Amino acid sequence: MALRSQSKSSETITIGLLGAGNVGAQVAKTLVEERELISARVGTPIKLIGVAVRDPESPRDWRIPGELLTTDAEGLVDTADLVIELIGGIEPASALIERALRRGAAVVTGNKALLASRGTELDAIAAETGALLRYEASVGGAIPILRPIEESLSGDRITKVMGIVNGTTNYVLDQMDTTGAAFDDALEEAQKLGYAEADPTADVAGLDAAAKAAILGTLAFHAPFSFEDVYCEGITEVTQDDIEAAAASGYVIKLLAIAEKHTAGQAPGVVLRVHPTLLPRTHPLASVRGAFNAVFVVAENAGELMFYGQGAGGRPTSSAIMGDVVAVARRLRAPVPEAPTISREVNLPPLLIDKATTQYYIDMEVADREGVIAEIARVLADHHVSIESMRQPGSVTVEGEVEDSDNGAKVQVVTHIASEKDLRETVEELRGLDVVKTVNSVLRVEVNR
Amino acid sequence: MALRSQSKSSETITIGLLGAGNVGAQVAKTLVEERELISARVGTPIKLIGVAVRDPESPRDWRIPGELLTTDAEGLVDTADLVIELIGGIEPASALIERALRRGAAVVTGNKALLASRGTELDAIAAETGALLRYEASVGGAIPILRPIEESLSGDRITKVMGIVNGTTNYVLDQMDTTGAAFDDALEEAQKLGYAEADPTADVAGLDAAAKAAILGTLAFHAPFSFEDVYCEGITEVTQDDIEAAAASGYVIKLLAIAEKHTAGQAPGVVLRVHPTLLPRTHPLASVRGAFNAVFVVAENAGELMFYGQGAGGRPTSSAIMGDVVAVARRLRAPVPEAPTISREVNLPPLLIDKATTQYYIDMEVADREGVIAEIARVLADHHVSIESMRQPGSVTVEGEVEDSDNGAKVQVVTHIASEKDLRETVEELRGLDVVKTVNSVLRVEVNR
Repeated sequence: MALRSQSKSSETITIGLLGAGNVGAQVAKTLVEERELISARVGTPIKLIGVAVRDPESPRDWRIPGELLTTDAEGLVDTADLVIELIGGIEPASALIERALRRGAAVVTGNKALLASRGTELDAIAAETGALLRYEASVGGAIPILRPIEESLSGDRITKVMGIVNGTTNYVLDQMDTTGAAFDDALEEAQKLGYAEADPTADVAGLDAAAKAAILGTLAFHAPFSFEDVYCEGITEVTQDDIEAAAASGYVIKLLAIAEKHTAGQAPGVVLRVHPTLLPRTHPLASVRGAFNAVFVVAENAGELMFYGQGAGGRPTSSAIMGDVVAVARRLRAPVPEAPTISREVNLPPLLIDKATTQYYIDMEVADREGVIAEIARVLADHHVSIESMRQPGSVTVEGEVEDSDNGAKVQVVTHIASEKDLRETVEELRGLDVVKTVNSVLRVEVNR
Repeated sequence: MALRSQSKSSETITIGLLGAGNVGAQVAKTLVEERELISARVGTPIKLIGVAVRDPESPRDWRIPGELLTTDAEGLVDTADLVIELIGGIEPASALIERALRRGAAVVTGNKALLASRGTELDAIAAETGALLRYEASVGGAIPILRPIEESLSGDRITKVMGIVNGTTNYVLDQMDTTGAAFDDALEEAQKLGYAEADPTADVAGLDAAAKAAILGTLAFHAPFSFEDVYCEGITEVTQDDIEAAAASGYVIKLLAIAEKHTAGQAPGVVLRVHPTLLPRTHPLASVRGAFNAVFVVAENAGELMFYGQGAGGRPTSSAIMGDVVAVARRLRAPVPEAPTISREVNLPPLLIDKATTQYYIDMEVADREGVIAEIARVLADHHVSIESMRQPGSVTVEGEVEDSDNGAKVQVVTHIASEKDLRETVEELRGLDVVKTVNSVLRVEVNR
C-alpha cells in the first residue's frame, strides 16, 4: 500500500531538518544558500521549512535564520515531505524517523547507531508505506559507498567488504606507525585536533566501526545484520611494539570492519568482524592515512574495488546527506505506486567469529634454547595451522633452531589461512608450553587473495 | 510525454542483448545462469529473449543457447522492454539505441565512443520519451563512478575530475617506470598480454581517454560536452628519459583524463584535457598500477574522493552492465509518468586548453656555461611563470649558476601554476635562446592542492 507523500512536479518539496550540530548546521546552510542550485538539480523547487533543535539559543557553525528554528520536532515531522534526521543516538531519533515513514514522508539520515540496531525494522516500515529511506552518510562520511553497493553492484555477487571506517582509530594507528608515538599520546593528539571525542570509547573500542560493519554487511549481502552480529575488538591493546614488529615484516596495522561471505561447508553465512589487522604495505588500504576512510569491496565479476575519501567532518558528511536529499527529492517528483523491493538472499545468517578464516600473527616471548622452534611448530601442526613465516626480531627469518643463551628471545609467527577455532586452540596450547613465557599479541592478517 | 514501456510488477521484464563479444558473452551468461538471482534483486522476473549477432556461428567465450541467437537486431529492439547495447562503435549502435529509446524501451550501454559524440542527443531523446538510458560501463569498467557522480554527489559542487581511465596506457607507462622498458617494448608486452589491441592507436593517442573525459565532464558539471571539446595528447612521445627524470624528482608519469571547472576571470567554464601528467608519488592516483583504473574527484564539500578498480575485461565490465540492468529493471516495475530531469548548469561552456592552469615540467639541453640559468629564469619571469624547482640530472638542486665546461648540460624546471598560454610563449622563447640547444619535453604536473 502506497501512502507516500506525493508532490506534483510544479509543487515545492518541503524539507524538515532535525538537529543542527556540526553536520546539521552545514546542511541548513546548503539548503538555504544553495536553494536555487539544489532545486535545479532536483528539477522542482525545494524549501527548508524548519530546523528542530533542543535549544534555539545555542551557538552554531552557521547562524540559522531565527524563523526556521523550532523545538517542535514532531510538528516538523508531521508537515515536511522530506525529513533529514541528524540528531544521532537511538531516541528520540528512532521514534521521529518512524513517525515520518509511517505517514509516507521520505527520510534521509546518517545515524549509524540507529541503523545498526533498528535498520531492518525501519527499512520494513518504509517498504510497507512506500516511503523512501536513505542513509549514505552513515558509513564513510563523504564517500559514496552504500549506493554503489546497493545499485552499481546489484548485478554482481559481493564476497567481501573490508573498510577503514573510523577516522579516529585510523589517525591514532597512523600516528603510532609514522611517529613512533605510544597509544595514549597518539589518542591525546587526536583529541587536540578534534579527530577524537572527549570520551573516545565508542571509537577506540571499535563500536562505531562495528555499527558500520553491520550496515555494510546488510547491503552487500542482501541479508539483515545488526550490531550484535559483529565480533568486535578495539585498538586499546595495540602497542608500539606490535606496530614496530609489523613494520619490520612489511605490514601496517589498521582497524578494519570486515563482512565476508563463507560458502564452504554445509552452512553458508556471513562473518562480520572488527579488529586490528595486519595489512601488507602494498595493499590499497595500507596507504589510507590520517583521518581518511576507505572501503575495499571484492565481487565475483567486478573483482577488487576501492572507495576512498573523507570519513567525517561537517562539510564532507553534509555532501553525502545532500546527495541523498537530491536523489530522494527527484523520486518524490514522480510518485511510485508500489512498495520498493527489499531483496533478501536466503541462507545467509550471521556466523560466529569461529567460522572466520584468515591469517594470523603471533608474537611470543620464549626461552632462548634449543628445540623451542620445533616445539612451537609441532603445536601449530597439531592444530592444522601451517606457518607462512617465522621471525626473530633483530635476526633474519628463522629456518632452523635458535641458538642457546641465557636470555629470553622473541618469536613472531605469521600463519597461513586458518580458522579462528583452530587458532584459538593453538594459542591456548602455546601458552601452556614451558618454553613459551608469554604470548604478547595475536593479530589477524589480511592479504590480497 | 511518457511512452515508457511499462511492466506491471507481476510481468516478466524482457531483455534483448545486442552484441556477444567479450563483454556481451559474459552478460548473456549471467542473464541465463543467474536469472533467479537477478530476478530476486529486481523484484520481478527478468528474461533474456534474444542475442543479436552478425554471425551466429562465431565461437564465443560462453556458448549462447542457439534459440537465443538472431541476426535481426531491429526485431529484437522492437520487442524487448530493456535493450543492452554492446556492439560498440557509432553505427549501427546509434540507430538501434535511438530506435529503442523512441519506443520507450530502456537502454543500457557501455559505448563510450558513441556517448562522447552523441550522448547529449541520446539523453534528450530518452528525456522526451521517458525512456531510461544508463551507461556506467562506459567509464572505468567495473568501477562505480558515473552513478556516484550523478547521484551521490548531486548535492555538492564538483570542481575537478581526474582519472586514469585507460588500462593500456597505464600498463605501458607502469612497465616503463618499474622495469625501465622503452615505450615500444612495453607496448609489445601489453599486446602480448591482451591489454592492448593489435591496432593500439585509439589507446596510445589518448582518444579512448578523451571520450571518457567528455562523459565524466558532462555528468560532473551538468553541462553537455563532447569528444571535440577535449584537448588530447597521447603517450607516444613519452620517453624512458622522461620517466627517469620524473622518478628522480619524486614523480610518476600517468596519462590522465581531466575535467576542471575554471571560475576565475569573466568567463567561467570547463577545461577538458587528456595528456601525460607528472604526479607526485604520494598522490593517491600515483599508486594505481598495471591495467587498473581510478578516478579522483574533488568536490567543494566532499573534498577529495577516489574510486579504484578494474577498468576493462569481460567480467569486470559485465558487472557494471548488470548493475545498470538491475537498477533500470527496478524502475521499470514502477512506471514514472514524467520525463526525468536533465539538470543543466548554465554558463559552463567548454574552454580551450589555453584557459587551463597547472604546473609544468620542462626538460632542456643547454650550453654548459655561465649565465645559462639566469637567462632561463629571466625568460620565465618575463612571462609571469615562476619556478618551483630547477634541477640538473646527476646534480643536486641548482641554486646558483652551473659550472663552466665544454659539454652540454641538462636543465629540468618545475614551474608553479601558470596558464597554458603563458607557458607556450615561454617555451617558444626558450627554444629561441642561444644557450638552449633543445627543449626535450614539456609535461604538465598535477599536485594535491
